[in-house]
Amino acid sequence: MNRLQLVASIFEKKSFLCVGLDPELSKIPPHLHSEPDPIYAFNCAIIDATRDLCVAYKPNLAFYEALGPKGWVTFQKTVDYIGTSHLIIADAKRGDIGNTSRMYAEAFFNQLHCDAITVAPYMGADSVQPFTGFQDKWVILLALTSNAGSADFQQTIQEGEHRKLFEKVLVQSQAWGTPENMMYVVGATHPEAFAGVRALAPEHFLLVPGVGAQGGDLEAICAHGLNKDCGLLVNSSRGILYASAGTDFAEKARAEALALQQSMAAILAKM
Amino acid sequence: MNRLQLVASIFEKKSFLCVGLDPELSKIPPHLHSEPDPIYAFNCAIIDATRDLCVAYKPNLAFYEALGPKGWVTFQKTVDYIGTSHLIIADAKRGDIGNTSRMYAEAFFNQLHCDAITVAPYMGADSVQPFTGFQDKWVILLALTSNAGSADFQQTIQEGEHRKLFEKVLVQSQAWGTPENMMYVVGATHPEAFAGVRALAPEHFLLVPGVGAQGGDLEAICAHGLNKDCGLLVNSSRGILYASAGTDFAEKARAEALALQQSMAAILAKM
Repeated sequence: MNRLQLVASIFEKKSFLCVGLDPELSKIPPHLHSEPDPIYAFNCAIIDATRDLCVAYKPNLAFYEALGPKGWVTFQKTVDYIGTSHLIIADAKRGDIGNTSRMYAEAFFNQLHCDAITVAPYMGADSVQPFTGFQDKWVILLALTSNAGSADFQQTIQEGEHRKLFEKVLVQSQAWGTPENMMYVVGATHPEAFAGVRALAPEHFLLVPGVGAQGGDLEAICAHGLNKDCGLLVNSSRGILYASAGTDFAEKARAEALALQQSMAAILAKM
Repeated sequence: MNRLQLVASIFEKKSFLCVGLDPELSKIPPHLHSEPDPIYAFNCAIIDATRDLCVAYKPNLAFYEALGPKGWVTFQKTVDYIGTSHLIIADAKRGDIGNTSRMYAEAFFNQLHCDAITVAPYMGADSVQPFTGFQDKWVILLALTSNAGSADFQQTIQEGEHRKLFEKVLVQSQAWGTPENMMYVVGATHPEAFAGVRALAPEHFLLVPGVGAQGGDLEAICAHGLNKDCGLLVNSSRGILYASAGTDFAEKARAEALALQQSMAAILAKM
């Protein structure tokens, strides 16, 4: 999916919601455990319940790897079930030396048919650039993550540059890709950072985790995070997936997604 | 495998060699392509040829993920084939928010039976600590990697600390684990850095990639990298795996590994 298609989808659906597909066997409703592939059954129900309300899905690979080889089959089936109507983000946080990053890019883009992959910037240019050479595919670089540990290294000021590490990542990485094939992760738990991020990266899309279970606030992010193309994909995972542990889980998931979509529609209407 | 066992194995075998199991279908000898699982057949032959010469194996997950779900079966079979005699390092470069890192730790340590996993430090304490709570298991943090991109962020000086980012990682992360459950990646392509690394982390084991295909020199690393327990695991992947593309690939791989082991034995004898 390219940028034009993504932006069109956002304004058509009046939504910049990304649904995080991070299913845990211990948290999905008990009645699904008798299914041949309970996680897949859960994902399909969540996708059916939210498809018209979101523009992207973001399965985090950890939750599939934890299931062993059959977890990868579940991942692949889930991606296939979503199809080509949504941006599919493999939240994998990969990144390795050049020849190895190329293997990851090949795996996630060409074999697993994902549109985007999250990548950690620690290893620099040659670990990231292999992901930018694919038509209509995206690399999403971690900049300022939503967790407490983001204070440990990402926010330390770099000598001579008077910039924090995540700001250096935002600036330097713009030589490695374009706003058509690169996005940045900026956590909703840092609403005060969005004005500064937009000053450094006015055009790029930002993938924003941390709304919901992690406590981020949608209005606060949008106050400075929006750009003329919307420029935001706001993710919610646990808040939607586990809205109910009963047989009504999909219905309750839809209600949570709908509440977010309606807030987003109101925000987009004011643009 | 715990530190005592690892150190005993190093001095018994007179080797601190780690063999990187990064097999690519396009590079393995043609006669293996008729095997039911060519990559597994290749790995088994390499393991048989090098088992007495090395103390660790390091499969890089990218090369297995690129094969799709069956690649994970190959990975698991390879780990099982190695058994408990060697330190098995999942070179996965993972790292995510706390609850997600816990899923990765569970997958790699308890399900896939690896002894160690490489982790990127960018997301800070809560992305790393979930890996340190397992008996006789190790987290191996990226500090100064072997690739050109290591200059982009890892070597920038941090204001007020007068330390490079990788040095800050070395210092700060020592609060998250111990020399019994944490190692650091320091690339062989930076021989000049080892004295400084040892000043900051005198006791920790260092995993050293970049010897061989990437050009690192064993003597230069050891000059400052050794500690009283040896403290080094030096990895070679391509230099061993692809020493020959013919039916003699395992024999030639053994010759490469043996040359490295003999150099290591000479270095250990001088300790």
